[in-house]
Amino acid sequence: MYKTARLCSSGLSWKEFGKKLNRSQCRSRILCQVNLFNRSLSTESAQKTLSSKNNDQQHSNNEREFDSTGYAVTTKLCFALGITGSVIWLLNRKRNIVHAAQSESAGSLKKGLPTYSLEEVAKHNKKENRIWVTYKNGVYDITDYVSNHPGGSRILLAAGSSIEPYWEMYAAHKQEEIYEMLEELRIGNITEKSKDEQKDSSDPYANDPKRHVALKPSSSKPFNAEPPLSLLRHSYLTPNDLFFVRNHLPVPVIDPKKYQLTVTKVGSTKQVNLSLEDLKRKFNKKSVVSIVQCAGNRRSEMVTIKPVKGLNWGAAAISNASWAGACLDDVLKRTGIDIETVDAKHIIFDGADADPTGHNYGASIPIEMARLLKKDIILAYEMNGKDIPPDHGYPVRVIIPGVVGARQVKWLNKITLSDKESTCHWQQKDYKGFHSSIDWHNVDFTSVPPIYELPVQSVICEPEAGSVLEDDEEVTIKGYAWSGGGRGIVRVDLSADGGKTWHSAELSPTEQPLYKTYAWTFWEGTIPLPKDHKGEVEIVCKAADTAYNVQPDNVEGIWNLRGVLSNAWHRVPVKVPKS
Amino acid sequence: MYKTARLCSSGLSWKEFGKKLNRSQCRSRILCQVNLFNRSLSTESAQKTLSSKNNDQQHSNNEREFDSTGYAVTTKLCFALGITGSVIWLLNRKRNIVHAAQSESAGSLKKGLPTYSLEEVAKHNKKENRIWVTYKNGVYDITDYVSNHPGGSRILLAAGSSIEPYWEMYAAHKQEEIYEMLEELRIGNITEKSKDEQKDSSDPYANDPKRHVALKPSSSKPFNAEPPLSLLRHSYLTPNDLFFVRNHLPVPVIDPKKYQLTVTKVGSTKQVNLSLEDLKRKFNKKSVVSIVQCAGNRRSEMVTIKPVKGLNWGAAAISNASWAGACLDDVLKRTGIDIETVDAKHIIFDGADADPTGHNYGASIPIEMARLLKKDIILAYEMNGKDIPPDHGYPVRVIIPGVVGARQVKWLNKITLSDKESTCHWQQKDYKGFHSSIDWHNVDFTSVPPIYELPVQSVICEPEAGSVLEDDEEVTIKGYAWSGGGRGIVRVDLSADGGKTWHSAELSPTEQPLYKTYAWTFWEGTIPLPKDHKGEVEIVCKAADTAYNVQPDNVEGIWNLRGVLSNAWHRVPVKVPKS
Repeated sequence: MYKTARLCSSGLSWKEFGKKLNRSQCRSRILCQVNLFNRSLSTESAQKTLSSKNNDQQHSNNEREFDSTGYAVTTKLCFALGITGSVIWLLNRKRNIVHAAQSESAGSLKKGLPTYSLEEVAKHNKKENRIWVTYKNGVYDITDYVSNHPGGSRILLAAGSSIEPYWEMYAAHKQEEIYEMLEELRIGNITEKSKDEQKDSSDPYANDPKRHVALKPSSSKPFNAEPPLSLLRHSYLTPNDLFFVRNHLPVPVIDPKKYQLTVTKVGSTKQVNLSLEDLKRKFNKKSVVSIVQCAGNRRSEMVTIKPVKGLNWGAAAISNASWAGACLDDVLKRTGIDIETVDAKHIIFDGADADPTGHNYGASIPIEMARLLKKDIILAYEMNGKDIPPDHGYPVRVIIPGVVGARQVKWLNKITLSDKESTCHWQQKDYKGFHSSIDWHNVDFTSVPPIYELPVQSVICEPEAGSVLEDDEEVTIKGYAWSGGGRGIVRVDLSADGGKTWHSAELSPTEQPLYKTYAWTFWEGTIPLPKDHKGEVEIVCKAADTAYNVQPDNVEGIWNLRGVLSNAWHRVPVKVPKS
Repeated sequence: MYKTARLCSSGLSWKEFGKKLNRSQCRSRILCQVNLFNRSLSTESAQKTLSSKNNDQQHSNNEREFDSTGYAVTTKLCFALGITGSVIWLLNRKRNIVHAAQSESAGSLKKGLPTYSLEEVAKHNKKENRIWVTYKNGVYDITDYVSNHPGGSRILLAAGSSIEPYWEMYAAHKQEEIYEMLEELRIGNITEKSKDEQKDSSDPYANDPKRHVALKPSSSKPFNAEPPLSLLRHSYLTPNDLFFVRNHLPVPVIDPKKYQLTVTKVGSTKQVNLSLEDLKRKFNKKSVVSIVQCAGNRRSEMVTIKPVKGLNWGAAAISNASWAGACLDDVLKRTGIDIETVDAKHIIFDGADADPTGHNYGASIPIEMARLLKKDIILAYEMNGKDIPPDHGYPVRVIIPGVVGARQVKWLNKITLSDKESTCHWQQKDYKGFHSSIDWHNVDFTSVPPIYELPVQSVICEPEAGSVLEDDEEVTIKGYAWSGGGRGIVRVDLSADGGKTWHSAELSPTEQPLYKTYAWTFWEGTIPLPKDHKGEVEIVCKAADTAYNVQPDNVEGIWNLRGVLSNAWHRVPVKVPKS
C-alpha cells in the first residue's frame, strides 16, 4: 500500500526496530501505545478511529503478529507504529536515566547557553547548515536525530522553525521521555527579541507577527499562506500555527486592555461598548468546531484553464478549529436587540485592520442567515483553547459557521444592524460568483449576491500530486470534505479510472449532528488501481452533502474571473511502478 | 424570435387582427388589457413582469406602435396580445349583445340539454370527432373556434377535458365576454355520475379520483403523472388540476367530518386527536408558497445512460403551490411539545394511504431540520386557496418547504416524535442517493442517510426538445430553477454552443427572501445561436443557488440505481432552419 510503504522507507528499518522492541521487553506497553497512536492520529474528536470494530480488530491483529513471530512486524503495523517508534527508540536509548517531570521545564530558558534569533534559527533548515528547531524558548540541533525519526522525513517540515504545531498534531510526542530526549539536543535559547525586529516605521506590515516556516505563502504583504496539504489531513483541529492565513491588510496591533467592541443599529442613538473582559465575564462561553475556508481555495486549478485575479491557492486554504467566545445572539440581546424581530436586513461586522487611507475591512450577512444560525455565531476570543493568535483576529473575531472566511471578520471592533449590506470593497466588489463568460470588461458586481455559504467540497490530501506509489494494485487515499450551511457529508466517492467505477470512502465520525455539521469530515479509502495503467493514474474524489449537492465534474464549467468557488471533482495524478 | 414566431403562426393573422382592433375603436382598453396580459402571463406573484422598468417600456412601445401605424402590430406585440386577442375577437363578434354577469352562471347545469359522461367527452379530442371541452358542469364543442384562438394550438391541451386549469393559468380569460362566448358553444351537461364509475370493489384503485387529461401518466395504478413541461412554465402557481401527481398507493377516501390527526411522542402516554375543524379553528392559518418536487424528476435522462428502477419522469415532476394550514410548531406546542427542547431525534408523519397488507405510507425528518424550518412547516388543508384535492392529500398533508416530496406526507393522520426514523419502506429502502457503481447486488440502504433537502435544479421549459426554431440567429429560452433548503437562485446561465460561451438569464423576482426561497424562480433569456450550426443546436442551462452550489456537468457522474437526484445541466436539442 502506498501509505504504508512510504513511511517504511524512511527512519529505522522496521526489522531493526522490531529487535529493539523485543529487547526492551515492554510489549504490553508498546501495544497500548500503538493503539494510543492509532487513536491520536486523526483528531481529537478522531480519538475514535474510523470504527471501534476496526480498531479492536487491528489491536488484536497487532498482538497476534508479535506473539507468533517476534520480529515480524507487518507492513500495516509499520505505519501504525510511526511516532510510537520514537518513544521506543528513546526507551532503549535512555533506559538508565531516571525520568523527571520534563514536560514543564522543557523549552524554558537555560542559563549559560548561547542565544539565537529566530532569523538565525531559520537559516539552519538543511543538513549542510545543520538542522535546528525551536520549542518554546529552546533551540535544538536535531541533525543527527533526523535519520532515526520513525515518523520519517515529516520532521523536516519543522526545520529552522518551531516543532510545537507538529507536537499538537501528533500528541504521542507529549511524553516525558521525548521531552528528555529533546533537552539532550538543546544548544541554546531564543533571544528575547530578534535582532532584525527593529521595525521599519514606513512599512505598514512592520507589526505583522512571525509565522511558522511550514506555511507556504502565496503573498507576503498582506500575508497569505497555507500549510502543506498532506499535513492538514493529520489533525482534525488544525494547530493554530499551521492554520491557513488570509489577510487583506496589515495585522493590527490591539492592546487587549483597551479593546472595545461597539454594538449599534443604524438610526438608533444607542451604542454599547464592550471590553474583552466584558465579553469573557458577562456572557456564557460557547464553543463551536468550525471550518474557515477561503473562497479562493483551489484557485490554482482554475488558473490552468485561463488566468484569474487572485492568490494562487492550492487546496489547503481551509482549516478547522475549536472556537470559543460569547454568542452573538446573547450579546445583541444584552444590548437590546432581538435577532428575530429587529427591523434590519443585515448585520455588518467591521474589523480593525485598515488600509493607508483608513478604510477598514468589513463584511455583512443577511439577517435571515443570522436567524438560522442564531446561537452558533460566536464572537470568539479563543482558538483551540488559546487566545486567538494575531493572524487570526486577536483579540476577537466573529465565527459564522458554514460561511466563507471573508465574512468571519477578524480583529472585530464593531457590529452594526442595518438595512444595507456592508459597503466594504470585499463585500461589494469581490467574493461573488460569475459564469465563465464574464470578464473584467463586462462584469457587473451588483448583478449577483455576495458569497456567504460555500458549496460542497472534497479534496484528496494523500497521496499528493506526482507521488510515486509503491504498490501497483491499490492505493489508499485520504482527504477532507465539507459543505457550507451546516450540511454534513453523506458520501465521498473515489475513482482511479476516470470515473468509470466508483468506490465509497469511509467517513470519520463527527460529533456534530449531520444537519448541523460545521467541521470538516475526514475520509479514507483503499481502492484498486486499473490493470491497464501505463505508469500513470489519475485518482479522483467527489462528495455529496446532506442536500445531495455534488461537486461539478470539471473546473471549466465553474471558471470565474476571480477564481473563487473552485470545487470540481478533485483530480490527482500519481505514478504507478510497473510490476 | 422563436417564441414570438411560434405564436404568430396560429390563430388570426395579426394584420387581420389589427384591422379588427381599429374597427373596435377601443384602443385604450386594449392597451390596458395588453398590459394585463403581460402581467398575468407568468404568475400570480408574477403579476409583476421581469422588471417594472421593462414593463413600462413595453407598454409605451405598444402604444407608440398603434399611434404611428394603426395596423402595424409588431412581432413582439403579437405575442403579448395572445389571450387578449380572444377578448377582442369576442368584442367584434358580439358587439350588440348586452353583457350579463355570466361569470357566475357559466358552466352551471342547463335544462333541456343532453348529458354526457366524462368518458364520452374524452373521446372528442380531435377535429375528426369534434373537439369538446368541459367547464364546471358544461360541455362545449369548440371545434370551430380552435383556429381563431389567439393563444394558438395550446387550447388543444384541453381537448376532451376541462379548460378550467388553463383559465387559472391565463387569468385574462376570466372576462364576462369570454364566459358569454363559451356559453354560445354549449352543447350539453356532464352527467352527474359517469356511466362506468360503477366501482370494481376488487380494485384497490377504484376510488381514485378523475384526473385532468393534460397530465401525462407514467403509471396509472398507483397514479403518477406530470403536466406538459412547456405548460408548467406558464403559471407561477401550478393549477391544482395540473399539479404533478406522485402516489405510492391508492388514494384513500377520507370523510372530512370523521378526520382525525393524532399527535404523540414515543414513550409518552399522552396523545392528542385533532379534527379538521380543530386545525382550521384553533390555530392561526399560515400560508407558504412552496415547491413539491419528486426525487425522480428528470429520471428519464438517467435512463439514457443505463436502466434504473423507477417511473420514467420527464422534467415536470415538480410544481409550485400556495399552501395554507396550521403551523406544525403551533400544533406541537398546543399538544405540549416544544420542538426546540423535545427529547426526540425525528418527527414521523404517517399517511392514511395503505397497501393491501395494511402498511401505510410514512416518512420522517430529523428534529434539527424541523428546528431550522420551524414556523414554515405547515399542516396544510388548502392548496391555492381551495381544499386540497384528493390526489394531493385531502384533507390534510404536511408541507415541509425545501424538502423532497416524499417526506411531505399526504392524507396525514399521525405525527409522532421519536428517537428513530420512520420505519416505512420509502424512508428506509428508497429515496437515497448512491454512486454509479452501486447496483442492486451490492446496495446497502443503511449506508447513506435519506434524501431530505434536494440539490439545485434548473430546467429549460421552452423551447421543447426537438422544436424547430423559426429564427436562425437567436433563441428565447424560458425555464424554472429551484434549490432545496430555502436556498434561492442567484444565477441561471445559458449556452447554445455547448458551454463555450454563457449568457445570464433574467430571473423573475420572487417575494420570498433570497435565503428562504421555497418557491421556484422563473427565468428567461434570449441568446445568440452559433453561426456554425448545422441545422441542430443543443441549448443548455445551469443554475447556482445562494450557497453557490451548481448543477453537475453530466448525468453520468450522478447516475444511481434508483434514478433520483437527476440535476445535471439541462440540455435540449433543437433544430435551426438554414438561412
